[in-house]
Amino acid sequence: MGADGLNPDRFFDPDPSIRRVARALYEDTRGLPIVSPHGHVDPRILADNEPFPEPASLIVQPDHYILRLLYANGVPLESLLQGDPRRVWQLFAGRYYLFRGTPTGAWFDYELREVFGVREQLSSETAAHVYDEIVEKLAAPEFRPRVLFERFNIEVLATTDAATDRLEHHCAIRESGWKGRVIPTFRPDALFRISSPEWPAALDGLGRVRDYVGFVRALVERRKYFKQLGATATDHGVLEPYTALLPEEEAERLFQRARRGDATPDDERRFTAHLLMEMARASLADGLVMQIHAVVLFTLDESTYSRELAPLAGHYPAVRLGPPWWFHDSMEGMRRFREQTTETASIYKTAGFNDDTRAFCSIPARHDLARRMEANYLGGLVARHVIDESDARRMARALAYDLAKETYKLARLD
Amino acid sequence: MGADGLNPDRFFDPDPSIRRVARALYEDTRGLPIVSPHGHVDPRILADNEPFPEPASLIVQPDHYILRLLYANGVPLESLLQGDPRRVWQLFAGRYYLFRGTPTGAWFDYELREVFGVREQLSSETAAHVYDEIVEKLAAPEFRPRVLFERFNIEVLATTDAATDRLEHHCAIRESGWKGRVIPTFRPDALFRISSPEWPAALDGLGRVRDYVGFVRALVERRKYFKQLGATATDHGVLEPYTALLPEEEAERLFQRARRGDATPDDERRFTAHLLMEMARASLADGLVMQIHAVVLFTLDESTYSRELAPLAGHYPAVRLGPPWWFHDSMEGMRRFREQTTETASIYKTAGFNDDTRAFCSIPARHDLARRMEANYLGGLVARHVIDESDARRMARALAYDLAKETYKLARLD
Amino acid sequence: MGADGLNPDRFFDPDPSIRRVARALYEDTRGLPIVSPHGHVDPRILADNEPFPEPASLIVQPDHYILRLLYANGVPLESLLQGDPRRVWQLFAGRYYLFRGTPTGAWFDYELREVFGVREQLSSETAAHVYDEIVEKLAAPEFRPRVLFERFNIEVLATTDAATDRLEHHCAIRESGWKGRVIPTFRPDALFRISSPEWPAALDGLGRVRDYVGFVRALVERRKYFKQLGATATDHGVLEPYTALLPEEEAERLFQRARRGDATPDDERRFTAHLLMEMARASLADGLVMQIHAVVLFTLDESTYSRELAPLAGHYPAVRLGPPWWFHDSMEGMRRFREQTTETASIYKTAGFNDDTRAFCSIPARHDLARRMEANYLGGLVARHVIDESDARRMARALAYDLAKETYKLARLD
Repeated sequence: MGADGLNPDRFFDPDPSIRRVARALYEDTRGLPIVSPHGHVDPRILADNEPFPEPASLIVQPDHYILRLLYANGVPLESLLQGDPRRVWQLFAGRYYLFRGTPTGAWFDYELREVFGVREQLSSETAAHVYDEIVEKLAAPEFRPRVLFERFNIEVLATTDAATDRLEHHCAIRESGWKGRVIPTFRPDALFRISSPEWPAALDGLGRVRDYVGFVRALVERRKYFKQLGATATDHGVLEPYTALLPEEEAERLFQRARRGDATPDDERRFTAHLLMEMARASLADGLVMQIHAVVLFTLDESTYSRELAPLAGHYPAVRLGPPWWFHDSMEGMRRFREQTTETASIYKTAGFNDDTRAFCSIPARHDLARRMEANYLGGLVARHVIDESDARRMARALAYDLAKETYKLARLD
Repeated sequence: MGADGLNPDRFFDPDPSIRRVARALYEDTRGLPIVSPHGHVDPRILADNEPFPEPASLIVQPDHYILRLLYANGVPLESLLQGDPRRVWQLFAGRYYLFRGTPTGAWFDYELREVFGVREQLSSETAAHVYDEIVEKLAAPEFRPRVLFERFNIEVLATTDAATDRLEHHCAIRESGWKGRVIPTFRPDALFRISSPEWPAALDGLGRVRDYVGFVRALVERRKYFKQLGATATDHGVLEPYTALLPEEEAERLFQRARRGDATPDDERRFTAHLLMEMARASLADGLVMQIHAVVLFTLDESTYSRELAPLAGHYPAVRLGPPWWFHDSMEGMRRFREQTTETASIYKTAGFNDDTRAFCSIPARHDLARRMEANYLGGLVARHVIDESDARRMARALAYDLAKETYKLARLD
Repeated sequence: MGADGLNPDRFFDPDPSIRRVARALYEDTRGLPIVSPHGHVDPRILADNEPFPEPASLIVQPDHYILRLLYANGVPLESLLQGDPRRVWQLFAGRYYLFRGTPTGAWFDYELREVFGVREQLSSETAAHVYDEIVEKLAAPEFRPRVLFERFNIEVLATTDAATDRLEHHCAIRESGWKGRVIPTFRPDALFRISSPEWPAALDGLGRVRDYVGFVRALVERRKYFKQLGATATDHGVLEPYTALLPEEEAERLFQRARRGDATPDDERRFTAHLLMEMARASLADGLVMQIHAVVLFTLDESTYSRELAPLAGHYPAVRLGPPWWFHDSMEGMRRFREQTTETASIYKTAGFNDDTRAFCSIPARHDLARRMEANYLGGLVARHVIDESDARRMARALAYDLAKETYKLARLD
């Protein structure tokens, strides 16, 4: 953030013919509601609607990007996670220069200025004053979570929840009469890890289950419950894109071995491969969109964009590309993603933007950055006469809003 | 394509100092003859010289890029490949927005406007009218294949032909007295796949061959025949860059096993590895340029450009890099190719442009796009003072014309 | 090089708002001393301080980039490495167009103009005249190595030396009273390769060593000797990032097997893995910075930048990313390096620039190019309002000077 605050043209190419179009496309999309179909916000925040705590525990401690880069530069993790929050904030502020040119820096600058209205830049000198200013804001009624949800113009927010979760916070939100749309996402990973010492406890969360048939039946029941509370998708964190259809006796055998605590990692691999098929079958039956965090949809390996992922999405009707993910959800990462996928798969086989965040107050910052980067990408295509401006407007809207809603089946049916 | 047709500056960087040079370089090369040393046009088209059929079977059905993206967006393949061609055309036209920003879109816009003179944009509404306009054009004498060949300014067009092909269309073209240069390329893949059920039929195509020595002799004879009809190159679609020199008894044993129908995939792997060596030896003897579709010259894995391919071509005198291929023969793909290879291998160790197309009418569109992208790349180097403008002019000509001709030994000797 | 010499804006983006900032940042850093912590200059050059020989043996013959590209374009290596140096120079000059757009070309243009003051472009026609001009310059006292060292404004130059090297040239430099700072780097690779036929000779270089304990003791002694002569770092060329801690008896057994000449490649692999741990331990004790040429710090595989290297450096406090290396130390290679690492690891977890050269006279050319590319990268961030100009100035200085000095602990303590 410069001394005069956020530049209205930030992240846009300086070429005047690109910037003019990028600006116009961004103006078209900046006011669209936020659709957040994949993230990790704790639903309790919106169920309880209590004031947020002070800045260190709100902004620094839950953000793995911030912790990681401070640690990498020699700050012990303990000094960031324990003790006086003002001291933690000071440690962060004094090293804020490390975040220059990173997406974390871009997100934080936005949050500071646009969410909290702070007009100073963060530094060692301003740390205490900025801290006090945020503390004061957080105490005010207009900074309660539900008010922020509305101010952020969030149309729908999906959380990520264990398959065995009772979803009590989602229930509480519904029962409160508040109209904000917060929906769960069904994530059964812990139930698939049959060689893990934590598996028995996860299994207990499903109620009394004695055999494989009962196990699958219980999963289907849980999906139904998630759906009743608004879920439109599942999420599977698989390590490799391996599926297999086992004979039922084999599945039963693996399940019983797991109950005895004897399942090996290889048993788990085959059991998971089989369950992915069961879950795909369940998705066809109940309509929940299946997300796979493996090489197929979300990837940490950019060299697969043009080599495998775009060709797959450019062929199979059921496949869409998730957004550039994790340490690629950055300015350059987003640019490379569009440059490497659009020509083969078109923008229409991508899933729109996911903020994937657990930091509630960073949601608008992440969507703003994404909308700017998409506007800039399209602006470049217009300036090079690859597409015309009316095409670009439709595409910008699709990228900012329509694709996420369509991919995750988020149009309200009621 | 914008409402006013093709922008004369399309695909050029909007920066004025890049665009000025890119324009000048493109103007230098746009009128050069087309050298097409590697492609898949059916030579019968030019032997028979019959009018082309209607637009769906000319443009939509033979284009795997178009079919793939329509299918990926939910259009069943049957509805595109069967039935009323007007309906097929309408299905394509109504989804033409999917091709915005893709090379297929860029090629099609050019073909529509520059080849067929259509001034409308393709959409659901204009589909029928555009269809009729193309049908009318195709009936006219100036749209016969040979007239288009001359209008496209094609200096030489190489087809790709099975090693056992009788090349009757190439003979017919020669005998017709027409002066267009259409030459075959020797592709023996089917004869190398000894574990395939189709191998015996392929072998029959070679005439009576009883042993390995006779097999190699027959291959050499076929190469000679191809050369008589103008061939200057062979093309080998190998799955892995594996070569081996087997003792002759071993080659004979594999050959006899294949004749009995007993060859395994591993036999095939070793036999192919050995035959690649035989073919390299034959190339040294008869002078046909050897093309290998493996990791070495054409690649689907862009991460090998800077890591392996450019260093290889930048070292071995006999190796050149083929062009960015298949789903990389796109605007961004070409840009990345030059950026990742020039500094290590120089442009002079690349093979110029290949259109690699089976769609005859798309040939000028593909060369035009490639010439624009090369002009733009060189324009960027000039604007950053990496090279000067007189260097750039020589390099643009090499990329548009000289390198393809030199790599494939296409200078006429007669 | 254009007809008017080196353009003052070379390598900068032509966009006026980027170029303005890039120019300013470059002006800030161009005069900073050169810190060269990793390279391969022969220290004898500076110990003897004799005039350099003629241009072919100074510029063409020791440069593997030049030799490689000439060879790749059909010039036999023998004709470049033997015979009349004027003929070698002529061969190079006549093909100088091959280097257009390559970093070798950029470096050579700088060397010709800025180091030797030659105002002509090199070509077949000017070859002899340029040759004579350089020969005349080399004879003058102001072209003696030590005078050039000072004119190049080199603050410190590290060489790379076998662990068994007597470092007589480093001693001679110290004893001469000349104040140029030339320091050795400890490279023990040859001593780790126990299955190599050259190992016994390397071992002899350590003096009388009978067992593993004595071997490690001798290595530690050598490190101490290197440190006394100014070394601040070690350099390890490992093939894979494999480490293991062996029981001492096992290490002893491997050592004795090596002495008998019986060590296998697998023995070598384990021995090296163990010695890397010993060397890491020694670095903790004696403070020499450990450089590893494997996937971890220097890489030939760019696809690892964003996927593995930046995340590693963005997490582990002890890890820094080396510069884009070998055939990636080019304009485009540097650009991609910054674009793929900054957002995840920040510039502060990179090691600054290494020229990695054995060609003494190319040192300023390489640093100049690097400083220009960094200025241009930062100029782009400023023009897109990702960082502001005062941030950029601090970052430009860090990249040009501070980071190399800090990473390699090169601040003078005396």
